[in-house]
Amino acid sequence: MARGRRPTDVVREEIVQAAGDLLFEVGMNGFTIEAVAARSGASKMTIYKLWPSKGALALEGYFTRVEPSLRFPDTGQIEADLRTQLLAFVSLLRDSPAGQVIAELIGRAQLDPALKDAFLGTYSGPRRALAVETLERARARGQVRADLDAEAVVDQLWGACYHRWLLPNQPLTDDFAVELIRNLFRGVT
Amino acid sequence: MARGRRPTDVVREEIVQAAGDLLFEVGMNGFTIEAVAARSGASKMTIYKLWPSKGALALEGYFTRVEPSLRFPDTGQIEADLRTQLLAFVSLLRDSPAGQVIAELIGRAQLDPALKDAFLGTYSGPRRALAVETLERARARGQVRADLDAEAVVDQLWGACYHRWLLPNQPLTDDFAVELIRNLFRGVT
Repeated sequence: MARGRRPTDVVREEIVQAAGDLLFEVGMNGFTIEAVAARSGASKMTIYKLWPSKGALALEGYFTRVEPSLRFPDTGQIEADLRTQLLAFVSLLRDSPAGQVIAELIGRAQLDPALKDAFLGTYSGPRRALAVETLERARARGQVRADLDAEAVVDQLWGACYHRWLLPNQPLTDDFAVELIRNLFRGVT
Repeated sequence: MARGRRPTDVVREEIVQAAGDLLFEVGMNGFTIEAVAARSGASKMTIYKLWPSKGALALEGYFTRVEPSLRFPDTGQIEADLRTQLLAFVSLLRDSPAGQVIAELIGRAQLDPALKDAFLGTYSGPRRALAVETLERARARGQVRADLDAEAVVDQLWGACYHRWLLPNQPLTDDFAVELIRNLFRGVT
């Protein structure tokens, strides 16, 4: 086949794109390797060769799909930059199909150890690393304290939003995101 | 039947107890009204009359089972009281069967709207209210600022722990719980 001669990275990218599109249209229920193959034009064998599991492919598709909305600005002002990114994150969950998709993925991951591993390795691990890098840059500039545990901040900003999204006793609003930042920068006392 | 003449609140409590015990032994997979009836000695009809769904009963059983471990102390020192309670919560998730059970319940709730409603109404709503009450008492004593959004603090303490428990890229440790409190009371700058 002509497609067989195309560079692997191009084929890979097309598959990831197709996976993300499919996931956002049908959720995990309808997400199958067959359907990704049909949509991308790649063979099932190629997909099985490139990804260890269906979950890993779905999560790479999700990551690629949401990455442009979740970039960290770097204006040099950490509090403002975190606020900008966190508001974009809240909007992604609340106002786009991503919110339903990620809730379903986190939910299924609790019942499926392989999907949980894929989630941690392919999605939440890399996302955490980007947030921690941003906080480390701020630390190098002296904008957060030297002994700050950046990983804990990740759970207190994005984790707090996921908590409210998964268990919506209270609504996930812009005001909430602003309060999360304020509580950490001003303190609660 | 002799049992039929016993007071409803006694029967109700026995059913809740049996539901919690069953849930902690077998998880939601094996949690059925039949099994709760068999264990409690109540009839299925009685159970169906008292609870709107299997999920609502499971969550009331869970609440009752964990409530003694999750009481809020009230020494008058809010920071110390929150630390004590949050460490107990972390230990409950990490060191007891409750951790696996609650992860499974939150996971299933993402895929089952009736279970999510039961979770919000029977478990997370009442737990949030207890935490908010504790913070309101501290506000009345002037120990936290007057304009503090107590609901956001719930997501930044217990929500942050759930986030790390459900998506364990980083471990849920006592040190982490202590850092969560410190970040809010000292601030990150």
